[in-house]
Amino acid sequence: MPVNHDAVDRDTVTEVLAGVRAEGRSALTAPEGKRIADAYGIATPGEALATSADEAVAHAGSFDGPVVLKIVSPDILHKTDAGGVIVGVESAEQVRAAYDRIVANAREYDAGARITGVQVQQMLPPGQEVIVGAVTDPTFGKVVAFGLGGVLVEVLKDVTFRLAPVTEDEAASMLDSIGAAEILRGVRGAPAVDRAALAEQIRRVSQLVTDFPEIAEVDLNPVIATPEGALAADIRVLLAESVPAPRRTHTREEILSSMTRLMQPRSVAVIGASSEAGKIGNSVMRNLIDGGFAGDIHPVNPKADEIEGRKAYASVLDVPGEVDVAVFAIPAKFVPAALEEVGARNIPNAVLIPSGFAETGEHELQDRIVAIAEERGIRLLGPNIYGYYSPWQDLCATFCTPYDVKGPVALTSQSGGIGMAILGFARTTKTGVSAIVGLGNKSDIDEDDLLTYFGEDPHTKCVAMHLEDLKDGRAFVEAARATVPKKPIVVLKAGRTSAGAKAAGSHTGALAGDDAVYDDILRQAGVIRAPGLNEMLEYARALPVLPTPQGENVVIITGAGGSGVLLSDACVDNGLSLMDIPADLDEAFMRYIPPFGAAGNPIDITGGEPPSTYEATIRLGLEDPRVHALILGYWHTIVTPPMVFAELTARVVAEARAKGIHKPVVASLAGDTEVEAASAHLFAHGVVAYPYTTEQPVAALGAKYRWARAAGLLPAKG
Amino acid sequence: MPVNHDAVDRDTVTEVLAGVRAEGRSALTAPEGKRIADAYGIATPGEALATSADEAVAHAGSFDGPVVLKIVSPDILHKTDAGGVIVGVESAEQVRAAYDRIVANAREYDAGARITGVQVQQMLPPGQEVIVGAVTDPTFGKVVAFGLGGVLVEVLKDVTFRLAPVTEDEAASMLDSIGAAEILRGVRGAPAVDRAALAEQIRRVSQLVTDFPEIAEVDLNPVIATPEGALAADIRVLLAESVPAPRRTHTREEILSSMTRLMQPRSVAVIGASSEAGKIGNSVMRNLIDGGFAGDIHPVNPKADEIEGRKAYASVLDVPGEVDVAVFAIPAKFVPAALEEVGARNIPNAVLIPSGFAETGEHELQDRIVAIAEERGIRLLGPNIYGYYSPWQDLCATFCTPYDVKGPVALTSQSGGIGMAILGFARTTKTGVSAIVGLGNKSDIDEDDLLTYFGEDPHTKCVAMHLEDLKDGRAFVEAARATVPKKPIVVLKAGRTSAGAKAAGSHTGALAGDDAVYDDILRQAGVIRAPGLNEMLEYARALPVLPTPQGENVVIITGAGGSGVLLSDACVDNGLSLMDIPADLDEAFMRYIPPFGAAGNPIDITGGEPPSTYEATIRLGLEDPRVHALILGYWHTIVTPPMVFAELTARVVAEARAKGIHKPVVASLAGDTEVEAASAHLFAHGVVAYPYTTEQPVAALGAKYRWARAAGLLPAKG
Repeated sequence: MPVNHDAVDRDTVTEVLAGVRAEGRSALTAPEGKRIADAYGIATPGEALATSADEAVAHAGSFDGPVVLKIVSPDILHKTDAGGVIVGVESAEQVRAAYDRIVANAREYDAGARITGVQVQQMLPPGQEVIVGAVTDPTFGKVVAFGLGGVLVEVLKDVTFRLAPVTEDEAASMLDSIGAAEILRGVRGAPAVDRAALAEQIRRVSQLVTDFPEIAEVDLNPVIATPEGALAADIRVLLAESVPAPRRTHTREEILSSMTRLMQPRSVAVIGASSEAGKIGNSVMRNLIDGGFAGDIHPVNPKADEIEGRKAYASVLDVPGEVDVAVFAIPAKFVPAALEEVGARNIPNAVLIPSGFAETGEHELQDRIVAIAEERGIRLLGPNIYGYYSPWQDLCATFCTPYDVKGPVALTSQSGGIGMAILGFARTTKTGVSAIVGLGNKSDIDEDDLLTYFGEDPHTKCVAMHLEDLKDGRAFVEAARATVPKKPIVVLKAGRTSAGAKAAGSHTGALAGDDAVYDDILRQAGVIRAPGLNEMLEYARALPVLPTPQGENVVIITGAGGSGVLLSDACVDNGLSLMDIPADLDEAFMRYIPPFGAAGNPIDITGGEPPSTYEATIRLGLEDPRVHALILGYWHTIVTPPMVFAELTARVVAEARAKGIHKPVVASLAGDTEVEAASAHLFAHGVVAYPYTTEQPVAALGAKYRWARAAGLLPAKG
Repeated sequence: MPVNHDAVDRDTVTEVLAGVRAEGRSALTAPEGKRIADAYGIATPGEALATSADEAVAHAGSFDGPVVLKIVSPDILHKTDAGGVIVGVESAEQVRAAYDRIVANAREYDAGARITGVQVQQMLPPGQEVIVGAVTDPTFGKVVAFGLGGVLVEVLKDVTFRLAPVTEDEAASMLDSIGAAEILRGVRGAPAVDRAALAEQIRRVSQLVTDFPEIAEVDLNPVIATPEGALAADIRVLLAESVPAPRRTHTREEILSSMTRLMQPRSVAVIGASSEAGKIGNSVMRNLIDGGFAGDIHPVNPKADEIEGRKAYASVLDVPGEVDVAVFAIPAKFVPAALEEVGARNIPNAVLIPSGFAETGEHELQDRIVAIAEERGIRLLGPNIYGYYSPWQDLCATFCTPYDVKGPVALTSQSGGIGMAILGFARTTKTGVSAIVGLGNKSDIDEDDLLTYFGEDPHTKCVAMHLEDLKDGRAFVEAARATVPKKPIVVLKAGRTSAGAKAAGSHTGALAGDDAVYDDILRQAGVIRAPGLNEMLEYARALPVLPTPQGENVVIITGAGGSGVLLSDACVDNGLSLMDIPADLDEAFMRYIPPFGAAGNPIDITGGEPPSTYEATIRLGLEDPRVHALILGYWHTIVTPPMVFAELTARVVAEARAKGIHKPVVASLAGDTEVEAASAHLFAHGVVAYPYTTEQPVAALGAKYRWARAAGLLPAKG
């Protein structure tokens, strides 16, 4: 059935919804649902009243497939008893005959009955049951859902979500995003369903809930999908109790302007600076000074003239010159007054280290500072944070220990504990960092603000964020979509399994466990989701080290057959494609390998080989343009000790890079403890290497690939 | 329908199968399948020929539900045209009428037709379609399969396997082992199916293939399961081309006897011992001597009188006294002759370090040594291995570097590379080891032999095995079942994703991807499967440290709310149950926590707390008998530095153990690099602790719980 893209009639929907509201209802009746479906071109079985056989023929002709005819009479309650229903009517001739028979039967049944006409209804064809729906997610707002229908799918929760509205392409992608996607393409000789018609049902539902935010939930359940079309057998619509007020937003320029002053300040005031060792106000001062911050550092403390060798001011109002950031190191109860002064002084950023706000139940106090900040145009970081680091500015605005290894990774955490883990991990792995930011209560500055900045920051090559919630899921997705084409974003979303029971008025609602929606929508935004804390940290460390792959052909070169098998497992787990090695390349590899070694992929060079075999095969893999990424499996032997392997690999990779060949190379080192130093050496030279694990290097490569695909740098996988 | 447990008629099956073979077929016809089903009491729709209305009534009365009646006449091909089929016949009266009508119709249709009678067939009721089947797995032999029926389940591969034959309980457990198990219990108000009848179908199929090994595959597809029973609508049986000869087996006593002499030898001969540094025969000698082996070490080398200060012998035949193990360090081609001498000398164990056998394509050479060993009664370890370690005997019979940290973990690897990773990991984590054994080509000694020994070895508290295949899956399962009640077994099964396409003649066969069968059957055997190399190593390290939990109540105590959320996620991921904390215990915890801290579970003691808060809450968790395991989330602060936390926790745990309280305690440490030393301190004092990860400590606890449940030490989880 051709789809009419213009068949949207908002006025009818407005009228229907107004009627429902007027009656104090939130659930629409079936006829109301049908009117809305018709208004938005959501295909439902056709039906129309005929008052003559000719009309009946015309109606039936406008529908696909057979029809059912039913008498319509206020005097005939039991239509079937009256011979008033005939099903499975196909040809025009049959329709005409059926019309006449029904009317005749009705007259015979009750000669006095008033006959309004005959309802001609399109019969639902047999087909694949699916569910299309929409719900209002607390984080992401209107989201549209798609899954196969029936009890089984409800049990297996095989359903996918997108932000509404969706484009045609996004809607089409949903058909492939469910576990049972194959069904829709036709299995065991069954024909494929009409994908375009199905996608169009999704698109129209997403449009409906976008145009009418007061619609809380929609269920088309089931939709019958056939090779010829997709018809919603039932439509259920629920209205929201209330529509939330839109969140305060900032333009991209506003965000970039204030975040730039936050992350690259020239002048910082420390409110509550102290000379007393052990006080937070002293730690912050010492870290700013010892960290080597080149800008101005102004201590503010009414009881001191000088702190840590700097002139102290009684109030921030007295601080001279333009100030970019005010760091708060005073008890919570004093924050509002000081914040007023920060506002009066036109300082754009307040970094609120103090705790004692929403996290301890002091919601009112937090609301107060948010109100002051909004009124005064101050952006708030925190409260309840350890502060933040901006290493390229030599800035440690925190009470924690300083960290000064400049590098490509920007990390944020909602929790202080995770922030400390970031610091320890970075220090022990010597991970170079462009920012570490505590977000704490997120009273104002949120991940989307920072993401907008990091996306533009030339020092930042990878962003990693620990978060427990998003205050504005759509703003985050928007910032992520703008950033992902430039650099990878790793997200550790905590609380992913705590969704628990969620009250829902529809099937779609019941399927939309918090994490299911998060997971689908973060993936759509191109974000790499880390399954745990350690993975977030390791991805953040590894991703900037790896060049972007130029294609999907991954080759494993291993000295240990056993590692080769485990590395292959890990490739499958991480969505990587082992290259089907062409015959000429296979032969080329075999020239370097003992005759009992295995070419193919993994390439098993066997255990006892000298450094030259590793070197020759790695070089071959790097230089053949058909190979896009290498996974190395090293086996500790006396013939090729760990550091010899590490050095030769680093050298071969460097030589290739000098020739303009930039391919991601990862390595798994199996051996005695010397493999630890060898792995560190490799990591420092651009090869992501780990000892005692086959999974971790491949997971890092997999994360890089996921990003490259999301960034549109690789053709979509078939 | 009551199930007749005795309705097994082997003779009929034998007769049917003989007939099929006689005709050179491997697939049974539908009537042949039906005969076999009847012979084994596999419920199919009832059918019987009636030659009178009375008989028809009697037949129909013996079946559940409505029947269909069909004319049986050699002269009537188109039964329906002849009015010879009536469906949905229910009461006796209806059956009688239908019988008479069919016969009358037939006579009317063709007065001369010979009428054999009327077939009375039970109608298949509407119900849940499931599939029950059996296949012959190359590793495990006959396995029985169960899954929901229909195309959707085939796409989603929601199916479970067990070794055949299954008991009633095992069969019943299969109904709960599929993802869509809920369906069978009835969802959305649908009634539950007759579980006993369904389990009985599974049990009978498993009995059939066990009794007749020549049956390669059975498909009951679909079986219609209803609240009243389970009927196989179709039965498909395929015969095997050939039945493999049973593998050579050893009794448990034989295995224990030879493995004890292997792992606790008093005298070792080194065939190919050498004085030349760098040679394998020298490394083995040096490692045996330097490792401090207290038994006899006899070098065998025709060209030397003395090696490393020991008298050398020209042949193993010359070595005096009883010898338990001959370690081979000679080229492959010399192995057969030397092995004959080992046999002549009645040495029970040959440790074959040399490569150059099956792994390099030299299958014939390997077959030769296996034949010699079988003839001579020698057990072979290898070939193609690094050797083995038995630290409690100070035995390093290997060319690798020595390892002497005695402890509770026995590790084996099929691959040398993985063996080296075991060594390096153990050394760097100071993991105490009872054995490290290379299995290599597994020409003879297999995981089941070692498992049988480790199960009895008092030093071994945990067994961890890397394997790529099992030569005899049933022997492994048997050894695992005997061991698991005593100690945990961790298995890293490599090659789990490489199943690839597998030719199969049945639906069950198509569903039985190698790994699906491995996974189900290893789980049934109570084995903890490690997803990757690092997990295998970490589980092996952690499991012996953790006491066995006495119940399912897990409590998280955390200083960082952020860690608490991630630890909760990890609990769900690892099948752990967060305790619903009783009000009095909640109050007790709250006495130690700031008012804005959160009781409940996780118990958030908040970030700024002194050591005394950690101490009091951990003690409370340990001492309350309703709590069974603790997960600690530490947050690095100045108030409670990492080592202070580690020491107080170790002390509190030790105090509890002194009082007889043994509960597993794991910890996640978030903080600066000092948390690394703190984690090591905790690990050394019986608390499984990791820095920078919330997932790993919980995964270790989860593994311990999985084992405790499999060992029957905890009530089964609801």
